[in-house]
Amino acid sequence: MLPISAIFTSTHIRFFSKPFSIHLRRLLSTQSSPIEYTLSHPIYTIWGSNTGVGKTLVSAGLAASILSPLSLSSTPITKFIYLKPVQTGFPSDSDSYFVYRKFSEIFLHRRPPFTVFASNQTLKASTPASKATLGAGYGVESLQTEEGGKWESGFRDLGLYEERKLQSEGGEEEAAVVLELICKTMYGWREPVSPHLAAEREGAMVSDSVLLDTLKRCLGIGVEGEGGEDQKVSVLSVIETAGGVASPGPSGSLQCDLYRPFRLPAILVGDGRLGGISGTISAYESLKLRGYDVVAIVFEDRGLVNEMPLLSYLRNRVPILVLPPVPQDMSDNLMKWFDESQNVFSSLKEIMLSAFVERIKRLHDMPKKARDIFWWPFTQHTLVPEEKVMVIDSRCGEHFAIHKVKNHDLMTQQFDACASWWTQGPDATLQIELARDMGYTAARFGHVMFPENVYEPALECAELLLDGVGKGWASRTFFSDNGSTAIEIALKMAFRKFLFDHGILADLLHSKTDEKCVELKVLALRGSYHGDTLGAMEAQAPSSYTGFLQQPWYTGRGIFLDPPTVFMCNGIWKLSLPETMQFEKLKAEDMSFYLRDEVFCKSRNDSSLADSYSLHITQELLLHSRSRGFTHVGALIIEPVIHASGGMQMIDPLFQRVLVKECQSRKIPVIFDEVFTGFWRLGAESAADLLCCQPDIACYAKLMTGGIIPMSATLATDAVFDAFVGDSKLKALLHGHSYTAHAMGCAAAVKSIKWFKDPQTNLNLISEEMLLRELWNMELVQQISSLPVVQRVVSLGTLCALELQAEGCNAGYGSLYANSLIQNLRQDGIYMRPLGNVIYLMCGPCTSPQICTQLLEKLHTGLNEFSQAQEKLGSYVS
Amino acid sequence: MLPISAIFTSTHIRFFSKPFSIHLRRLLSTQSSPIEYTLSHPIYTIWGSNTGVGKTLVSAGLAASILSPLSLSSTPITKFIYLKPVQTGFPSDSDSYFVYRKFSEIFLHRRPPFTVFASNQTLKASTPASKATLGAGYGVESLQTEEGGKWESGFRDLGLYEERKLQSEGGEEEAAVVLELICKTMYGWREPVSPHLAAEREGAMVSDSVLLDTLKRCLGIGVEGEGGEDQKVSVLSVIETAGGVASPGPSGSLQCDLYRPFRLPAILVGDGRLGGISGTISAYESLKLRGYDVVAIVFEDRGLVNEMPLLSYLRNRVPILVLPPVPQDMSDNLMKWFDESQNVFSSLKEIMLSAFVERIKRLHDMPKKARDIFWWPFTQHTLVPEEKVMVIDSRCGEHFAIHKVKNHDLMTQQFDACASWWTQGPDATLQIELARDMGYTAARFGHVMFPENVYEPALECAELLLDGVGKGWASRTFFSDNGSTAIEIALKMAFRKFLFDHGILADLLHSKTDEKCVELKVLALRGSYHGDTLGAMEAQAPSSYTGFLQQPWYTGRGIFLDPPTVFMCNGIWKLSLPETMQFEKLKAEDMSFYLRDEVFCKSRNDSSLADSYSLHITQELLLHSRSRGFTHVGALIIEPVIHASGGMQMIDPLFQRVLVKECQSRKIPVIFDEVFTGFWRLGAESAADLLCCQPDIACYAKLMTGGIIPMSATLATDAVFDAFVGDSKLKALLHGHSYTAHAMGCAAAVKSIKWFKDPQTNLNLISEEMLLRELWNMELVQQISSLPVVQRVVSLGTLCALELQAEGCNAGYGSLYANSLIQNLRQDGIYMRPLGNVIYLMCGPCTSPQICTQLLEKLHTGLNEFSQAQEKLGSYVS
Repeated sequence: MLPISAIFTSTHIRFFSKPFSIHLRRLLSTQSSPIEYTLSHPIYTIWGSNTGVGKTLVSAGLAASILSPLSLSSTPITKFIYLKPVQTGFPSDSDSYFVYRKFSEIFLHRRPPFTVFASNQTLKASTPASKATLGAGYGVESLQTEEGGKWESGFRDLGLYEERKLQSEGGEEEAAVVLELICKTMYGWREPVSPHLAAEREGAMVSDSVLLDTLKRCLGIGVEGEGGEDQKVSVLSVIETAGGVASPGPSGSLQCDLYRPFRLPAILVGDGRLGGISGTISAYESLKLRGYDVVAIVFEDRGLVNEMPLLSYLRNRVPILVLPPVPQDMSDNLMKWFDESQNVFSSLKEIMLSAFVERIKRLHDMPKKARDIFWWPFTQHTLVPEEKVMVIDSRCGEHFAIHKVKNHDLMTQQFDACASWWTQGPDATLQIELARDMGYTAARFGHVMFPENVYEPALECAELLLDGVGKGWASRTFFSDNGSTAIEIALKMAFRKFLFDHGILADLLHSKTDEKCVELKVLALRGSYHGDTLGAMEAQAPSSYTGFLQQPWYTGRGIFLDPPTVFMCNGIWKLSLPETMQFEKLKAEDMSFYLRDEVFCKSRNDSSLADSYSLHITQELLLHSRSRGFTHVGALIIEPVIHASGGMQMIDPLFQRVLVKECQSRKIPVIFDEVFTGFWRLGAESAADLLCCQPDIACYAKLMTGGIIPMSATLATDAVFDAFVGDSKLKALLHGHSYTAHAMGCAAAVKSIKWFKDPQTNLNLISEEMLLRELWNMELVQQISSLPVVQRVVSLGTLCALELQAEGCNAGYGSLYANSLIQNLRQDGIYMRPLGNVIYLMCGPCTSPQICTQLLEKLHTGLNEFSQAQEKLGSYVS
Repeated sequence: MLPISAIFTSTHIRFFSKPFSIHLRRLLSTQSSPIEYTLSHPIYTIWGSNTGVGKTLVSAGLAASILSPLSLSSTPITKFIYLKPVQTGFPSDSDSYFVYRKFSEIFLHRRPPFTVFASNQTLKASTPASKATLGAGYGVESLQTEEGGKWESGFRDLGLYEERKLQSEGGEEEAAVVLELICKTMYGWREPVSPHLAAEREGAMVSDSVLLDTLKRCLGIGVEGEGGEDQKVSVLSVIETAGGVASPGPSGSLQCDLYRPFRLPAILVGDGRLGGISGTISAYESLKLRGYDVVAIVFEDRGLVNEMPLLSYLRNRVPILVLPPVPQDMSDNLMKWFDESQNVFSSLKEIMLSAFVERIKRLHDMPKKARDIFWWPFTQHTLVPEEKVMVIDSRCGEHFAIHKVKNHDLMTQQFDACASWWTQGPDATLQIELARDMGYTAARFGHVMFPENVYEPALECAELLLDGVGKGWASRTFFSDNGSTAIEIALKMAFRKFLFDHGILADLLHSKTDEKCVELKVLALRGSYHGDTLGAMEAQAPSSYTGFLQQPWYTGRGIFLDPPTVFMCNGIWKLSLPETMQFEKLKAEDMSFYLRDEVFCKSRNDSSLADSYSLHITQELLLHSRSRGFTHVGALIIEPVIHASGGMQMIDPLFQRVLVKECQSRKIPVIFDEVFTGFWRLGAESAADLLCCQPDIACYAKLMTGGIIPMSATLATDAVFDAFVGDSKLKALLHGHSYTAHAMGCAAAVKSIKWFKDPQTNLNLISEEMLLRELWNMELVQQISSLPVVQRVVSLGTLCALELQAEGCNAGYGSLYANSLIQNLRQDGIYMRPLGNVIYLMCGPCTSPQICTQLLEKLHTGLNEFSQAQEKLGSYVS
């Protein structure tokens, strides 16, 4: 324990790295089953803007209002479930018992013509809390479970249960309608302090994932199964949190973070006291900053008309309800107060029910509306029937929450294994950090003018880029909006540099050369892809994307070389040369590798293969320069190591290394397109690190901003920059976009770049090597690479890709061959998108290897099933 | 007053539109002088996470710590200024008096060898508060001032002042060092309730702008002037707020919003009680959501170790200081407590001083660093010396806060009159709303995969677009990243549609035509600009941007027509025809207009000029089709009404209307590039509304997202979409960007689109006509258009542009002619960027006409001075 008046200055804070990394781990702990909940009935979370603002009174009032005659006439709800996941001060404080008891009192006071079965249950309690509950009867050993990284210890399985049947005097005949009130406390601690303190002091800990699992089960019990389809049970569930919105839960996670994976709609109990406006607004904002929807705010009137400024602030967004003042005199058990509050609770109930109905309606309407008005990119709309449109309700770290309709409506999780077009990096913790930074940056800067100006996020971002991916070579940062624009800028830079270096610029400026006599081409690899705008497309070899029907202006201004590729097959890494490379005397050790590291090994530079590559490149360049007159190869552009869109092909790093060397020796500027590969996608901060060579210009986007917002950067050496320096503005690089270096993109990049490369926040980082640890279980990868349906595997960094064995129309970008496999994996909680017959798993730089292993195992199973189905199909066909 | 238990459901809320619009107005009220403050010494704002958390104790402790012997040895501060802008419960509660008194007590308790002049002053108090203060002496009329839309009424100029000289026993000789404590209450109210309630109940109101003006004056008094350059006074100022961070100020604005224009660094006094973790974190987040920097958190220990979860949450970002518990027993005037707290306050002081020093250092370093590592777009770096680099500290609505170094460091405001490359729309209120939405959306979605999926922000954004700018014609929304990509997509759509409509698509698919025999060109207007990526550039006529040195691949794939332009000169709107239009029998009424509305009038459709236009266009198209074989005009692209980059040229709307008609009659798809013109830039939601004709495809960006984040949309008719429908994916539009329809961009667009077109939030909107009211004072505009240095003026919607009379190298994009004018206007608080000799003012759709008039007046003055300088120069030269 710390000294009471301890002073924590920034130096001291470093001392407290332990609670910090605990915090990380507790959020990262893996979930064995997906977080999901039914949408067949409303479930709300009740939050408080502070402790002691009356959350439990609201719960009790709601219970009475919902299980009442009035209720039956409008929307019949026959079951009210009240859950208190975390209770401290137990058993003297028990909110679930309070709701249970208060409901009974109200019932007996009002005596409605119903029968209600009411129950209250406490599942688990800490040893001291159990002792206090059971008194002398206590003596059983406390629970201690540990399974799959989840844990829960120091609890006693209390199973405390009481129930009563409430019936008005009229007797059973009148009360034909039978209602049910279920109150439940999940975990109880003895001390009336914050749960994280109680948990620590009483030695009764529960991890976030176990708590959420238990909550999920509690939400499910008594709901599913009962009644079946046509005899639907009408239920309303509420979960009451402990303390304020950002009060810590038992693990120390803030409750607003802890419950975030469910993202249930919220009722916020505000504060009617002096200072309560501020507290209510701030609590509301903390909920919004975690992506919660607040459906209503309710608070007790304290004579300060707090609703007026709240209404002004909220601008119709959220209804505000004001409860009458709670009397000091409790002699009537608050029965008069509950009577006076009846209309407020009934309004609250209506708001909750109608918000639920609206939400469900919207979720159901969305697929059709989307099909009607969206124009999705890269999508033939006729191939996407309404039922295939996926409704994404939210994201939590690497997981989507999606709306599914099976037997009933469900909100369930899918791992975003395509990383939303390869952009995603944040885990749940980074996402919330980014959200706060986005709010801050928007509030501080919005967007501000870049040229000739400077502001903090842009400067810090540029500093981090030059000190990170650009370290050792780059000196200038040019910002733009996306990978494609970054490439167009890079090409403009490279061409100018080329003209400058080869004296053509001077000749042009002094009219010694006519610009019509200079044609610039780009050297590129077949199968690489650099973006969809025309300038970027021109640097790609012809493909489905570049056809006349797609872009009539495309001509393909490149010399395109066929590259050698590397992949794993039957557990071994193999090198495959293109037909254009007819090398003699190939050595076996050059052609296959037991370890991936050997592929990257620098010692290969001295191999005869390296010489063959070098010769091949020289010949190709010679061939070209002979056949054309005015044409120059003004730039080399490559995607280092992996051709992503080109089917997740791993290019032989030796070949790319030799290629770069050959170009640089000829003063052909080298561009690395690291849009896909940059920022740990392949396990190192940049793919240039893997290649062990440096470009003159490089482009970054996607993961640079943590995958939250589009922005790109083109880095360049000072030598490239100098080719644009002069007296005239017309010599400057006249390219820019309105939102160049927008503050939010820069702020997101600053946070993400730092997060990914800090071993305190990225537990995957091996800091000595500045590499990610192996995320994909090698044994499993090798097994997969040995399956007959699998042609090749590439696993590197956050990527694990494989090509399915396929022929004819089953192969290539247009192929639908993988569809059944993809569909099955989606059912299994993995969202994948194929590239024709190439499929891949992609995680974030911070995703835990356990999650990756879970994904791989599911993929393995899926592939086995797919294999069997193909065999069956094959045998039917044959 | 409302009934105590009033229930506000969404229906009832509409009733309360009054406080809401008051809220708007109080934020919009114009500032007569810029918000600025000195950076020659630290100024901090002290915020509370709740009421009663001890802000004033912290202030008093700081005062004692700063004006102390220890302090003198390390960093000598000789003056401590304490400001309490808003005090309720006055005079019995007076925090400035408390600090004054407590400091004196501590001084007398500690008896340091110093002399301190301490004073406490209260400037103004409400009538009841004055009465209570002055007792029987009361009887003077209360103040009532109103000037330039600012107001302050119901106050008495209290001028209450007391001072004392504190000296230790040692006598004057020893106490050679003279220190000063200045305590000041700005406004006092009698009732101990929230300021907005007290202000209303006591009839003593003060607008936000008057309050900020007073605060600015108070921050300045006793600082500037004293001592001069070499004898600098060392000062530290703190401003203590009232209640919690989001407690309302006197006008009803939340204090975190009220003080936002200063954006002073913050000390947050947290809450050590149960529930205090949550309250402290939420308050911190509310401050972050307004763009404040929190330098330290300090709170009173209540034995709950609240610092542990706070440290975990804050991750080194902010130091946390814990004060010892305040004793219940106050008999020693807390002297023991202050003694125990001395080390905490001294740490706090050090943190505040070093944060200040770091901030100043960074501000000074930024220009050099920016010059060293940025590569600004459209900028010849040699023309931007370090002293010209502007440091933008933040934005508040339409204003930048910039760091200036004159006699001393200053943080001051400039109106962003270039709207940061024409993107900006938000006023201060919308900016904060957007910030919260950005935080929410990042937390809920981050970014999620778009194709084949649907999620709320994207769907709502598409719905709003089709129901707004696309209403009546568009059915599909294609999202992309910026104007340039939106144009490339539009061209691909148009070409496909053209091929489809003219049977070429079928011929190509059935190999009846070879694609090499089809060349598609675009019809465009000379001077128009559509973006910097190659595809968009190809649709522009050759210019400085498109030269070989800039983009060697540019060829200019367009037929470029010279358009007729319209402008105001000497108070009259005139039409100017290009040389290529040699029309006979031009009528005077066709060539000049008294009102701008006449220029847009539909009756011009029947004029002989319309016929001449029609004939001219037909001839141009004929000429073209005769001279080329395979070439087709596959699309028309125009910037409707205004060529922005082309020098803010207003194109004759009649000409564009005729052009559209001629193309549509020939089944040439029409693209409107509304990237600049869309979303109220020109006074209507789209420029198509002004032209009164509809395109087949249109592009939007910039203002669409309120200018906060890049995103664009290409809208199209169903007929265009149908040209991409088929069985094969390869027939689909294969263009997309990773962040397509990113959730944050969509959410920003949703908020902004709604905000701009809602008369409740956009007070400039004339809702019957769906037009903005005239923002630029017509009389002033006419006067400006009559100045000899002004060649032409175009004022429309949020734009007021003018071309300076210039010849030779003084004219055109490369001209530096306007520089002296621009520099003077920047000194005068207006940030303008010229387009060569064309300069312009640009505001947001919600900017108040009063602000626009202020800008125009300054521009007018500037032009007069410029004119005189030119004359002088002229007479010197001649």
